[in-house]
Parts: sequence; structure tokens; C-alpha cells
Amino acid sequence: MVLGGDGYLGWPTAMYFSQQGHEVMIVDNLAKRYWEAEVGVEPLSPIHSLQRRVKRWQEISGKKIELHIFDISENHRYLYRVLQEFEPETIIHYAEQPSAPFSMADRGKCIDTQRNNVLGTLNLLFGVRHACPDAHIVKLGTMGEYGTPNIDIEEGWLEIEHNGRKDRVLYPKKPHSFYHLSKVHDTHNLEFVARVWGMRITDLNQGVVYGIDTDETVLHEDLGTSFHYDSVFGTVLNRFVVQAIVKEPLTVFGSGQQIRGYLNIRDTLQCVELATLNPAKSGEFRVFNQFTEQFSVMELAEKVKVAGDSRGLNVKINSIENPRIEQEQHYYNAKHSKLLDLGLTPHLLTQDIIDHMMAEVEIHKKRVFPDLLMPNIRWRVPSS
Amino acid sequence: MVLGGDGYLGWPTAMYFSQQGHEVMIVDNLAKRYWEAEVGVEPLSPIHSLQRRVKRWQEISGKKIELHIFDISENHRYLYRVLQEFEPETIIHYAEQPSAPFSMADRGKCIDTQRNNVLGTLNLLFGVRHACPDAHIVKLGTMGEYGTPNIDIEEGWLEIEHNGRKDRVLYPKKPHSFYHLSKVHDTHNLEFVARVWGMRITDLNQGVVYGIDTDETVLHEDLGTSFHYDSVFGTVLNRFVVQAIVKEPLTVFGSGQQIRGYLNIRDTLQCVELATLNPAKSGEFRVFNQFTEQFSVMELAEKVKVAGDSRGLNVKINSIENPRIEQEQHYYNAKHSKLLDLGLTPHLLTQDIIDHMMAEVEIHKKRVFPDLLMPNIRWRVPSS
Repeated sequence: MVLGGDGYLGWPTAMYFSQQGHEVMIVDNLAKRYWEAEVGVEPLSPIHSLQRRVKRWQEISGKKIELHIFDISENHRYLYRVLQEFEPETIIHYAEQPSAPFSMADRGKCIDTQRNNVLGTLNLLFGVRHACPDAHIVKLGTMGEYGTPNIDIEEGWLEIEHNGRKDRVLYPKKPHSFYHLSKVHDTHNLEFVARVWGMRITDLNQGVVYGIDTDETVLHEDLGTSFHYDSVFGTVLNRFVVQAIVKEPLTVFGSGQQIRGYLNIRDTLQCVELATLNPAKSGEFRVFNQFTEQFSVMELAEKVKVAGDSRGLNVKINSIENPRIEQEQHYYNAKHSKLLDLGLTPHLLTQDIIDHMMAEVEIHKKRVFPDLLMPNIRWRVPSS
Repeated sequence: MVLGGDGYLGWPTAMYFSQQGHEVMIVDNLAKRYWEAEVGVEPLSPIHSLQRRVKRWQEISGKKIELHIFDISENHRYLYRVLQEFEPETIIHYAEQPSAPFSMADRGKCIDTQRNNVLGTLNLLFGVRHACPDAHIVKLGTMGEYGTPNIDIEEGWLEIEHNGRKDRVLYPKKPHSFYHLSKVHDTHNLEFVARVWGMRITDLNQGVVYGIDTDETVLHEDLGTSFHYDSVFGTVLNRFVVQAIVKEPLTVFGSGQQIRGYLNIRDTLQCVELATLNPAKSGEFRVFNQFTEQFSVMELAEKVKVAGDSRGLNVKINSIENPRIEQEQHYYNAKHSKLLDLGLTPHLLTQDIIDHMMAEVEIHKKRVFPDLLMPNIRWRVPSS
């Protein structure tokens, strides 16, 4: 069961598992489409209705994906029913508002984010306990839950010694937005139900995803995923690639020395599959840091410039005032060995990968509106 | 401004600050009265409407408390308006669902708890930023946020060394219920707005409160606070005192070796006043561990037995199966020096104090229904 199967990662995940021969159900409330409309942005390539995409997938692959459109945060009875009828072995939970700037835009969007994400996940936990308590929940968290601590980032748990005594504790969190906070809240709720109800939970603390294509999205133009280049829903590398293609300067926030973990969208699918095929034990709350490489924002900009310049694009890099409140100079060393131990073979960020993304973006470049590339949500502007 | 001014602690707090000559406004949505009705419990002594209590306070003290009945989690516009008009220097925020068993009863009550507590607090943070950004928020958290770690509990923050590097981090949390989790979520949201918006925040991680009277509640029988002895809203010592008086055995959960921090309701008022008179700085998120003594549950039961036996009550102690999932044998050493440093002079738990509580409970003992003393919410019973 893929919750949030209409999204950038949920849709390719659903097709991927379907292609592998798994029985797949998508649940989505289509809220992301509303949130896009609310802030006036559109995906790079036009996206059909989810019903149409599911039909197209069946025509192309011969495989059926079951689809239910409803809101898990509001309609727990329907959620309980589909959990009971479908009896999922694994629930892959992407059904969350995914944007930090969106969550910081104003009170309403902050509340929407924490309400949808935290309460939706709580309904899921009660539903699974009620209907299929042995199911494995694979929950998408974020590396942003950790913030930028001055110590090594471990995978979810930390062994500490304090005043001569020892304990293993949840890794302390210092996130940078109400969105990242919603994932921190989820993490605490999830650890609790593993501990107290004996549920099986994997929390994937994912880095920043880039990329457009997977083996399934390329099978037909109607199967593409919802790729965002805008400043609200577009992740940084995706946005840089689009800026290069439309000959806008790459907008680096502040010094660009901010370091984060990154991964290719194809590796998201691999990681989610590895977590699914190697489930958490009953009562286990485990965390995998899901990324393959660390880069600073400036390093990414420079890689895009190299790839763009070799296409004759003469790419410019512009440092702009950082709209976020975050440390720009900081230590960053995040462990990420658990998924590698399970067999992850990373698609690293080569010039070829960037070049391929540029070729894809080129096809749709008339749909790019440059005003959407500039950040318009500031962490400290008063809002109401 | 006292949010949650109808409650066990909110009402005495409002009267106390009013008596000290402060201009006081109460905000309450009366949700606690509904939640009591929902689980079929009543306070030990009858409690008039909040409007009646405020009028009675004015008659007795000559001081006016302004009152607004609305829900801060649902009606942010009204909240913004009263913040703008009243311009509070300090907001004392008790407006949260306060019971761990209530939050564990079923899905609906879990959602009510996290929705009311987390989203209500978010609305408050946006309201304060909008209307009175220099106001000091004094937020009631709980010692239960920490759980029972195997290391010393510090006051909110922890200095750690890991792989040869150091950082100061939020103390890691491992709470025991969805209620305690809601306070953990609040803590993370509050730390963030202090860091990013520069707000002034004091998070009072309060221990288990006991007691009935304050200097103001005793001024008239209509000014008493909402004292609960039931298994849902009654804190442990209050419940034991009532059990002793009605000649029911004291019900100790499991071994009774669970250790927690405790304080007298009079010290809650002192602590909140000390936090208010010594406000957090702009951008500061500080945590005070608000309790005065540590006891095991069995130690409390034995103290109540001694006090009861000396009144000729022949008190029995019954260990019952623990309805909660919690460690019964654990290390517990929680620091609590910051409020002492500010001048807190504790009312310690003497036999006199227990005896005085017993005399008060005696007056209302015909209103005690013994079936409400037994826990009927289990941490592992399936619910829907």
C-alpha cells in the first residue's frame, strides 16, 4: 500500500512495486494538487488525473494498481476499511505535505502541514493496529529532522554517556521548518507505538531527492512523475537544472556552504524496496539515513554550471539573501551505512546524470515560468 | 493571560496573579468539561460555571478577571484579536488536554489530544508573533517528556560529546503516552520559534501535582479548583488520598517502583510566578524542571497509609496489574535547580500536608464513586 501515490516519489514507487509483481494499492487525497494551486505553481510536465495514470499504467504494463482517493487524516473509517480488505504486508507512507517553505508561508499552511502529517500518521497507526498489526510501516522522514548538529549524525539512535552512565536514545533533533518539525513529531509517535504496541516501523530519514526518470516513468509520456522546479516544491538540484536550461542564474541561498545529503530518485525506489524486503521486527523502530552523497549547495551549483556550460548555456551562479534561517557554516557528517549494508548500489551524481536531466527539462522548457524560481517565502516575515 | 484558566491549575493561577495585582485575562474553551463528561467523571467538589467563578472572585477580592470563552486551536482570529487588545506581557499556557490515560483510550481521544495541544500551541505562536512578539510565553510541559532514561535528566538541554566533538542539544525524549508525546511536539515547535523568530519561551517541565488548596481557593467555597480523583484525570497522590478516605485500597500500578517528580499545587503557582517575574530573553528557549521531590509510587502509598492509619482508616495497599506500558525498575535522577535558584521555597510533602488533604476530601466524600478509582484504560487494549 502506497500512501501518497500521486506524488513525486509515491507514483514512481507504486509503478516500481507493481512492475516487480507486487499487488499495489494507492491511497491519496490529492491535497498536493490543491497546495500547488494554492501557491500558484505547476509541475514541469502536465500531469493527468491519478485515475488516468493508473489506467495508462495498466495499458502499458498489463498490471493493475488499485486506487482509493480519500484523506487518511480526516476519514479514518475508510482507512480502517481498506486496511482490513487489502491486508497490506507493507505500507509505504509518503502521504505528507513535503515542502519546508510551504509550511513557513503562513499560519494556515503551518497548521495544514502539521495537521495533515501528524494526525494522518496517527490515524494510520491506529488503523494498522486495528486491522493488520503485523504490517510493516515504511515511513518517509527526512534528514532535515537532525538539523546541522556539531557532532556526527547517526542513524536515528545515539549511544551516549553522561555523568558516568550510558543510554541509547533517539538522536536529538533541531529541524529548520514546521515541515521538518512535523516529521520529528511523527518520529516520536512512531517510536512510541513500536515500543508500546509492538509495531514494525522503519523511518527513512531521506536526503534531498533529485532526478526525473525511473525505469517505469519512461515507458510512456503519461507515466512521468510530478517534477517541480518552483521555489516551494522544487528541490534544489532539480531547480538548478531548470534554471540552467532557461538561462536564469542559479540562485544559491546565502553563502551556499550549507551541506546536505542527496540521492537520485531511482535510489529512493531501491531504498524503499530494501526496507520492504528486509522488514523491521515486531516492536522495532529503526531509522535508515537515506541518501548517497553529501554536497554543499555551492558544489551542486558548480556541477550544474559545468554540465550547462558544456551544453553552451553559459550558466551564472547568483548568491541571494537566504530566505531561510539556518546555519550556513556548519559541521556535517551524517552516517548512512545501513541501506548500503542491505545492498543499496547508489546512482551517484555524475555529469551524465545532470546532462540527462537537462535533456529532459529541455523538452518542457516552454512551461517554465522564471518568476516561480525565486523564493518568495521568508522564515522571518510576519504572517497571519 | 492565562490559557486554560478553567482547569485544576489554571484557575488558581489566574486568581493568584489577580490577587498579586496583575491584570489577568482567562481564555478557555471548556473542552476539559466535555472530556470529563465523555469519560463519565466529575470533580470531587461541584464546580460552578467559569463565568460564575469569575464573578465570585470579583465579589470576594474586589478584583476583575477578564474572561473569553473560545477555542485557540480552532478560532485563531479571535485569539489574534484578544492578544492585540489585551497586549499581555506574559501568557501562561495550560490550555492542553492533560491526561495520559485519556490520550490512550482510543483513536479519537489520541487525535483530540494531539490536535488540541499541538495545533492550539501553534496558533498561539503565530498569534503572539503577529500581535505581541515581545510577550513571554510560559508553557506547561511535563517531566513525562523525558521518560525514564538511564542517565541523569537535565533541564531541557544536554551537553554531549560524541566521537570527539561536542554540542548542546535538546534533551532526548522517550515519553510514555500520546499526551506526553503532544508535549514533546510542543517543545520542539517552541524551541524552533525561539531560535528562528526570536520569541521568549519558558517550557516548564512539571512533575505530578498534588493538593487542593491555595491561598485564593480557600477564600470562598465557590472558588475551589477542579480536583479529580478518578483514574483518568486524577493524579496519583490525589487519588490515593481519596481512596484512603473512602476506605478503598490504594491501587498501586505494578511494583510501584516507578519514580517521578512531585510538587504541591502551591508550588506550581510559585514556579509560574518565578518564571513570569524572571522572563526568558528574546530568542531564548529555556526549560525548568518544575518539581520539588522525587518519590516512587509505593513510597507515596506508604505515606498516605501512615497518615490514614493515624486517622484510624486502616489503609490497605493493593498492587494491581499495571495498565500502562512503562519501566517499573529504572534509574531516575532529575535535576531541578533552576527554579530553586530563582527563589522557589518548596512546600514539601509532610504528613501534615496529607492530613490536611484528607480533611478536605472528607467534606466531599459522599461525591466519590469508587468505580471511577480503578483504571479502565489499558495501553495495549485494541481500540478503534
